Amino acid sequence: MKVILYMASTLNGLIAKKDDDTSWISKKEWDSYSATVQAAGCFIVGRRTYNTLTKQPEFQELKNITLVVVSHQDFKILSPNHHIAHSPKEALEQLKDFKEVIIAGGGALNASFLAENLVDEIYLDIEPIIFGDGIFLFQGADFEKKLKLLGQKEISENEIQLHYQVLK
Amino acid sequence: MKVILYMASTLNGLIAKKDDDTSWISKKEWDSYSATVQAAGCFIVGRRTYNTLTKQPEFQELKNITLVVVSHQDFKILSPNHHIAHSPKEALEQLKDFKEVIIAGGGALNASFLAENLVDEIYLDIEPIIFGDGIFLFQGADFEKKLKLLGQKEISENEIQLHYQVLK
Repeated sequence: MKVILYMASTLNGLIAKKDDDTSWISKKEWDSYSATVQAAGCFIVGRRTYNTLTKQPEFQELKNITLVVVSHQDFKILSPNHHIAHSPKEALEQLKDFKEVIIAGGGALNASFLAENLVDEIYLDIEPIIFGDGIFLFQGADFEKKLKLLGQKEISENEIQLHYQVLK
Repeated sequence: MKVILYMASTLNGLIAKKDDDTSWISKKEWDSYSATVQAAGCFIVGRRTYNTLTKQPEFQELKNITLVVVSHQDFKILSPNHHIAHSPKEALEQLKDFKEVIIAGGGALNASFLAENLVDEIYLDIEPIIFGDGIFLFQGADFEKKLKLLGQKEISENEIQLHYQVLK
């Protein structure tokens, strides 16, 4: 199974404003993300991301995709194809029949997967914006990982996608 | 005068480890940075960056370049071509005869220039590494700036340079 972190960020590594606002992420970026998640057939998010993502109208595109929410506590999920796991490893175990799994935020979830050395590749779509403060791509766990640049492409004339292998 | 922020960062927007370590930045990146500073003939850093940068052997390449240190307090500078300014605007005023000025860290200095809307362009060299924690590209001031992607190039097979205009 290949574990892929797929996120959009500002040029300075923020994935949301402090109030969880991601409205600055473009429709083209969403389409690229959505297509990646649909091709994989499954994705993993943290509880805070679950609560904000499922309220967005675009989420309807992904409503039938298998989704695992990593949360220390149980809570009410919204759909029979959504599941709760209590750790990154448990989430991957639940999805072991998929060839690819997409890790999709937020910062604490992303950091926990990296800190446990569970991520094989990273796609980062860099939006043409910077904020002084917000929610970072990785938050709450320290780690160091070297990367190998696998490729880059322009999503639009203003947005670049960087693709890396995480060296283990 | 064109004001250019030129930095290297991890993929997740860190410019140093918590202990100011920047040894993970490649020689090729340094060479690109050094050539940019030498072409401009001047650069601006914060006091913490001044203290670490001037201790590095590679700094000898830049020892004759005009350098302004933005610091609220006066302190002992190391060379007659180094100067102290007490604010971003005062630093630019001191360098008003230069066509280009390079803003070169750290995070607090960078953020203060952006928050005061003083930066025209950003070059960010993305090193193939991620850390969970460290010093961010922008720290200590909140702002929001839209960017326009002006170009990109590979510094090496593993390092990409992104070049943006800051929209004002």
